[in-house]
Amino acid sequence: MKTIYIINGPNLNLLGKRQPEIYGFETLSDVETQCVELATELGGSIRFLQSNREYEIIDWIHEARGKAAGIIINAGAFTHTSIAILDALNTFEGTVIEVHISNIHKRESFRHHSYISVRADGVIVGCGTEGYQLALRRVMSLAKTVPTA
Amino acid sequence: MKTIYIINGPNLNLLGKRQPEIYGFETLSDVETQCVELATELGGSIRFLQSNREYEIIDWIHEARGKAAGIIINAGAFTHTSIAILDALNTFEGTVIEVHISNIHKRESFRHHSYISVRADGVIVGCGTEGYQLALRRVMSLAKTVPTA
Amino acid sequence: MKTIYIINGPNLNLLGKRQPEIYGFETLSDVETQCVELATELGGSIRFLQSNREYEIIDWIHEARGKAAGIIINAGAFTHTSIAILDALNTFEGTVIEVHISNIHKRESFRHHSYISVRADGVIVGCGTEGYQLALRRVMSLAKTVPTA
Amino acid sequence: MKTIYIINGPNLNLLGKRQPEIYGFETLSDVETQCVELATELGGSIRFLQSNREYEIIDWIHEARGKAAGIIINAGAFTHTSIAILDALNTFEGTVIEVHISNIHKRESFRHHSYISVRADGVIVGCGTEGYQLALRRVMSLAKTVPTA
Amino acid sequence: MKTIYIINGPNLNLLGKRQPEIYGFETLSDVETQCVELATELGGSIRFLQSNREYEIIDWIHEARGKAAGIIINAGAFTHTSIAILDALNTFEGTVIEVHISNIHKRESFRHHSYISVRADGVIVGCGTEGYQLALRRVMSLAKTVPTA
Amino acid sequence: MKTIYIINGPNLNLLGKRQPEIYGFETLSDVETQCVELATELGGSIRFLQSNREYEIIDWIHEARGKAAGIIINAGAFTHTSIAILDALNTFEGTVIEVHISNIHKRESFRHHSYISVRADGVIVGCGTEGYQLALRRVMSLAKTVPTA
Amino acid sequence: MKTIYIINGPNLNLLGKRQPEIYGFETLSDVETQCVELATELGGSIRFLQSNREYEIIDWIHEARGKAAGIIINAGAFTHTSIAILDALNTFEGTVIEVHISNIHKRESFRHHSYISVRADGVIVGCGTEGYQLALRRVMSLAKTVPTA
Amino acid sequence: MKTIYIINGPNLNLLGKRQPEIYGFETLSDVETQCVELATELGGSIRFLQSNREYEIIDWIHEARGKAAGIIINAGAFTHTSIAILDALNTFEGTVIEVHISNIHKRESFRHHSYISVRADGVIVGCGTEGYQLALRRVMSLAKTVPTA
Amino acid sequence: MKTIYIINGPNLNLLGKRQPEIYGFETLSDVETQCVELATELGGSIRFLQSNREYEIIDWIHEARGKAAGIIINAGAFTHTSIAILDALNTFEGTVIEVHISNIHKRESFRHHSYISVRADGVIVGCGTEGYQLALRRVMSLAKTVPTA
Amino acid sequence: MKTIYIINGPNLNLLGKRQPEIYGFETLSDVETQCVELATELGGSIRFLQSNREYEIIDWIHEARGKAAGIIINAGAFTHTSIAILDALNTFEGTVIEVHISNIHKRESFRHHSYISVRADGVIVGCGTEGYQLALRRVMSLAKTVPTA
Amino acid sequence: MKTIYIINGPNLNLLGKRQPEIYGFETLSDVETQCVELATELGGSIRFLQSNREYEIIDWIHEARGKAAGIIINAGAFTHTSIAILDALNTFEGTVIEVHISNIHKRESFRHHSYISVRADGVIVGCGTEGYQLALRRVMSLAKTVPTA
Amino acid sequence: MKTIYIINGPNLNLLGKRQPEIYGFETLSDVETQCVELATELGGSIRFLQSNREYEIIDWIHEARGKAAGIIINAGAFTHTSIAILDALNTFEGTVIEVHISNIHKRESFRHHSYISVRADGVIVGCGTEGYQLALRRVMSLAKTVPTA
Repeated sequence: MKTIYIINGPNLNLLGKRQPEIYGFETLSDVETQCVELATELGGSIRFLQSNREYEIIDWIHEARGKAAGIIINAGAFTHTSIAILDALNTFEGTVIEVHISNIHKRESFRHHSYISVRADGVIVGCGTEGYQLALRRVMSLAKTVPTA
Repeated sequence: MKTIYIINGPNLNLLGKRQPEIYGFETLSDVETQCVELATELGGSIRFLQSNREYEIIDWIHEARGKAAGIIINAGAFTHTSIAILDALNTFEGTVIEVHISNIHKRESFRHHSYISVRADGVIVGCGTEGYQLALRRVMSLAKTVPTA
Repeated sequence: MKTIYIINGPNLNLLGKRQPEIYGFETLSDVETQCVELATELGGSIRFLQSNREYEIIDWIHEARGKAAGIIINAGAFTHTSIAILDALNTFEGTVIEVHISNIHKRESFRHHSYISVRADGVIVGCGTEGYQLALRRVMSLAKTVPTA
Repeated sequence: MKTIYIINGPNLNLLGKRQPEIYGFETLSDVETQCVELATELGGSIRFLQSNREYEIIDWIHEARGKAAGIIINAGAFTHTSIAILDALNTFEGTVIEVHISNIHKRESFRHHSYISVRADGVIVGCGTEGYQLALRRVMSLAKTVPTA
Repeated sequence: MKTIYIINGPNLNLLGKRQPEIYGFETLSDVETQCVELATELGGSIRFLQSNREYEIIDWIHEARGKAAGIIINAGAFTHTSIAILDALNTFEGTVIEVHISNIHKRESFRHHSYISVRADGVIVGCGTEGYQLALRRVMSLAKTVPTA
Repeated sequence: MKTIYIINGPNLNLLGKRQPEIYGFETLSDVETQCVELATELGGSIRFLQSNREYEIIDWIHEARGKAAGIIINAGAFTHTSIAILDALNTFEGTVIEVHISNIHKRESFRHHSYISVRADGVIVGCGTEGYQLALRRVMSLAKTVPTA
Repeated sequence: MKTIYIINGPNLNLLGKRQPEIYGFETLSDVETQCVELATELGGSIRFLQSNREYEIIDWIHEARGKAAGIIINAGAFTHTSIAILDALNTFEGTVIEVHISNIHKRESFRHHSYISVRADGVIVGCGTEGYQLALRRVMSLAKTVPTA
Repeated sequence: MKTIYIINGPNLNLLGKRQPEIYGFETLSDVETQCVELATELGGSIRFLQSNREYEIIDWIHEARGKAAGIIINAGAFTHTSIAILDALNTFEGTVIEVHISNIHKRESFRHHSYISVRADGVIVGCGTEGYQLALRRVMSLAKTVPTA
Repeated sequence: MKTIYIINGPNLNLLGKRQPEIYGFETLSDVETQCVELATELGGSIRFLQSNREYEIIDWIHEARGKAAGIIINAGAFTHTSIAILDALNTFEGTVIEVHISNIHKRESFRHHSYISVRADGVIVGCGTEGYQLALRRVMSLAKTVPTA
Repeated sequence: MKTIYIINGPNLNLLGKRQPEIYGFETLSDVETQCVELATELGGSIRFLQSNREYEIIDWIHEARGKAAGIIINAGAFTHTSIAILDALNTFEGTVIEVHISNIHKRESFRHHSYISVRADGVIVGCGTEGYQLALRRVMSLAKTVPTA
Repeated sequence: MKTIYIINGPNLNLLGKRQPEIYGFETLSDVETQCVELATELGGSIRFLQSNREYEIIDWIHEARGKAAGIIINAGAFTHTSIAILDALNTFEGTVIEVHISNIHKRESFRHHSYISVRADGVIVGCGTEGYQLALRRVMSLAKTVPTA
Repeated sequence: MKTIYIINGPNLNLLGKRQPEIYGFETLSDVETQCVELATELGGSIRFLQSNREYEIIDWIHEARGKAAGIIINAGAFTHTSIAILDALNTFEGTVIEVHISNIHKRESFRHHSYISVRADGVIVGCGTEGYQLALRRVMSLAKTVPTA
């Protein structure tokens, strides 16, 4: 069965509890539940993770090497500052989909650039928490035509 | 029933016939067929359009006002140069999802900026032609909670 | 009798029907009526035009050569992107007044630069639809001291 | 009766006496006469001022608070350097129209940016000394629909 | 027989009739005559086109696919603004030579950059209308060693 | 008889012996032969020069003053760095055509700017070694209508 | 009683032990003592923290939510690189005062920009370790007029 | 007794009377009263000044040389434009603290740069009118360990 | 007899009394004495002025119109910020020599640009107070071949 | 005996296992073995470290203070983003040599700038894993003439 | 006796023979004669040199070390491009005065920056060929108070 | 036996005789001696060269083609300005190591960029004259695994 890592970066542990005008009212736990359901429906499984620690995100990406069909990553603020996460993703051979809940192009200019996008296969922005599910569909549909890791 | 406009910009009439290493082998007609099917499944209908003419795209957006639940737009090269299309979208009250088949962040730097993104609600990049279907899902799921236009 | 071309660019056909907080409630047709009245009062006549098509604007400027005393142009979004319209205006020998209904200096930074201004004789910004009438006065008062085209 | 301040910045005391190829042959006194006539015709009155001193311009703007229906300002070179004048205008509650006799967009690049434009309601550029009269018309027509200060 | 498309962009219909200090006195019709003669001499044929419409230029490039040995393009002002024409040229498999009548490097800075140059095989600038003939020679001499399209 | 200087800059002595994927297989000596033939055919003569020394190029340009009808110059890397060569060309009263064998617009960004282009009458880029012959044609056709130096 | 978090970033554990010409001779422990005394005098209490770990700073800010009246933060080098800390502060509803011991405007240009300043209510720079006490006074005086968290 | 100059720049005479959402409701006279009280408490005296005239500010700084223990300066808009005030401060040997009532880092980008900061010993921003008192504390505490001027 | 205005800008009243490592130990009065002597020797006379007030400098330049053979100006910090002084100089028909005592190219980058240089005939930098005398020689030697103003 | 810290940053734990076309086939363990051997030969000892955690790298640098003769650091991606590591190195009194296995000047532009280089004594780039040994030689040869820490 | 090197860069051998509207009608030989006369009058001697060769200029500067009291250098176009000449001047211990005949600030922007100015003691611009004599006066007056090299 | 070219650029002939605080006290002759010894020890031979002439450096690189195993180049100031040397190195098929004695990243910003680095295999900076020996080791260790040129 295909495993997909869904990795969330700093401050996303507060999702649904802060700035709902930007991020909505669903918690990260709600998102996990929705993703588990959809993954099951599509014949895959997920490992759902969150950390405020850059190294933990790097370690999880290393862990996913040779094991996961894809990584869905919402690196939060690290998106705009972490070349180390980019380098980690560069060592991963599977599909990478970058997700942002809000439309980063409508926010401060320092949120317009992502170090991850040049590695990502796809980028889904501003589709709210539904963006995770769209990303999941994409990883799964690519995985059908590629031998499982 | 909810109608969704899917508008394609210049050179997309050649989709599947040129540079398949960037854009893949599916034609625009294939994409239309897939979208019609998915729209039907989700309880909506689509109007699928393509033009090399900026004004035609503007006119279609004007036409969609007060009539469509959402616009899915892949403005091709106009993405990076047309403020007129942005202005037209600014007159539209429904959901706008911007789609790019390839990952524009991996290409020439002049393709990294989109005039449309600041108006779009969501942006889906680098998910191939499947990006249109992901966009359709998003428009439809937003339309469920909003009275049809 | 002196003829003056008043040329309007993309999306201005929706004037008064969209974003009234920026553009006000008067329609383009209202503007035309006011200009016809003022032109008559000042002893001139106008040809009032609007198009979402860049080439039509270029063609009208070509048409005005050797025929019009002046061109009043609100090129809308083309203001910021069309060197072709600038080149067309460069072939015109009469007065050119550039008009913008809203104050473009208060809006997004990509609206601050105009390709047309380096050719225009005068620029009138942020005076609402009254800007057209101010422009008309200027063209007419210059035309008094110059032999009619 | 509506009073309108017309404030002129540095070197404009030499108007008509220097660089006529840029500024024409009319003196500032000529401009004042024309403005007085037009103001009378339109049912208003003007206070016409010039100074090479930045602080005097600031003081006049302070003086206009709660007293004038509008300020027409040609700040000359201070346009491009004085944030203090901008701040003074920010304390004024009436209409502000910025005027430049020559088309600043055709001149040195350091004349293209104005600190005043982001506060101004309207900007009239390159209409020669007639620009003052066009500005006066605009202030007066706005004043009709707004209770006099 | 080898066919070569010679495509001219906006305002070139006025060639010889405007700004002769920049563009000279020959009309586009003169240029066509000269090109026809030279093409005949070199054993080729030409299709000579001009439009102020961006989409027509795109359509002609699409039409040339699989049919023409080369495209000689003077895109006029679109050179500096149209990524859509670049994308169209990217779908063409033959030789592309970019021509500018005047030396664009001596003119305004916004004319120094060409979107087309990164696709063009050769660029000929500032050789007047003779530039078309030099371009024709180049396309024909490349065509000799390549099987005709 | 009209003399034309053809001046080549640094590293061009290795033409045809290095990086043929960029510069092709013809040597500078081949180019000279072709130019001599064409010059004879067109009724002119050439002086064909190459140096890795900036001062020699400057000296040759000084020498050409009052003696040559034109200079064809491929300054190689000096194109992008030598204002001294530009200054020397500024002292020359005849035609100057700048040639580059490869399309410099497809290469590193520091090769996109040429100090010489602002002085050159024409610029021919990316036409391989045939570019020299095209340049020769241009200089000769201009020389027909101008009294020989 | 009002609690105030005082959070110190990387390398501040060495305060007083390194580069005294920049940072002075007082240790972080001295600073803590002074702050405790002043807080007591002003009727508040403090939680004084230091870490070289970005995530620990983020966690402490999360912890302060709904609990602290204010955060005084000297994020050290993270000031200039961490959008994640900015995002954490954006989730905090109380007063934020940013402190820097040295005058960062006199140092390397990369120390001139702070990601935190756009969120901070106040910024105190270059007042040595006394800056912490000034910040404390400010937080306390704001807290007097606001209900304790 | 230690004297401290508190110098205020243009438009601050309107403090408390304009834009209270930015600057609050206290007048400059209120600020003076508070500063006099605190100075007395701390064993110092102040000279409290305001001018819209750049030269007066320069003259006061010259006057303070050899006489004052410190200068607290809120140069208003001159902060961002006056190198002359910086040069004057460079001739002053005592402590300089720069104060801004509002947080200039949250406002227009042209307010982010201060010419004064590179000379100031300390900078206090966004602490409202209390910032003057914090600055006073800092100057006085530095003055304790330095012989009075 | 030829009169020459020597105009000094802000803070130069302190010359010789501050920062002697930059400006030396001579006072402005010493400089005046030296210039008077040299002017007498060269057959001219001078009017030697200093002000911290921008408007006074502008007024003196206006005064010099039609009266002085030349202006020697060390505008101090206004060099880098005052377009109004540039505009005043633009109204002056005689020789303008710009002087700086220190070498501004060795100092902060904001001192490298001068608004005055584009109007000045000559610029003398870093020659200490002797620079005034060199400037005087230049103005006088130009005045010999030009009828006195 | 002289101790030298060799500190490796994020993702270097995968050395030899990922992207061998950039980093080669040797593992970090191989590098350690080679360095131990060379250090022994040169009369020193090493402490060889790797971490994906920024704070651990900071802590190790703090630990090296007063203990190590030098630090050899390959900070990986942190090279380009961590001012905190720079600040830590600024507290270290011994030799610092920066090492990069690949030639960062041939890679993405964001890898061209290093925050560490301004503190480093030497920088060795693109010499593969041999770079560590070259760095070791340099630290040891400097240590010979300096008393051991 | 004090020797002063006067070094002239590329194309200055044509002085007086080219572009007299920029450089005047005096030849370099005239300049030499004037300098010899003035040097004699002031009690010094000169070595007057010109070369189109960068290395010759470097060699002459090396030669001047320990031998000349000063170098007056007009490096022509090398001013803007040669760091090697700057480095050579950095090895010279005497006075360096940079001279430009024309006012480089009125010309192309690439002539506004000089690599030499950061080393020069003084810079004299736009004083025509008289600039050499002004420079000579400056070097000689400095040499009076410094022991001859 | 493997031959290695060691090429030194302008002003390096003065090594050890100028600015020892930057470059140390060893002369270029000392460096040559050390390199000869090390080369012998490692089984290679060297050709050690220095020139202030760019063309000589280019000629030596051409000479090394097909003859040398590697080039060690310290191009001095030409590092930052010579594309011609880069182009010459591009024609060389062996190893290239770039050396700088001082740490160029600590010096003026125009020394931070090297045209040579994009061609170099390795770059060694700030290791003093020992850098040449480190470079020699690297070239020799690469040469062991590659057939001698």
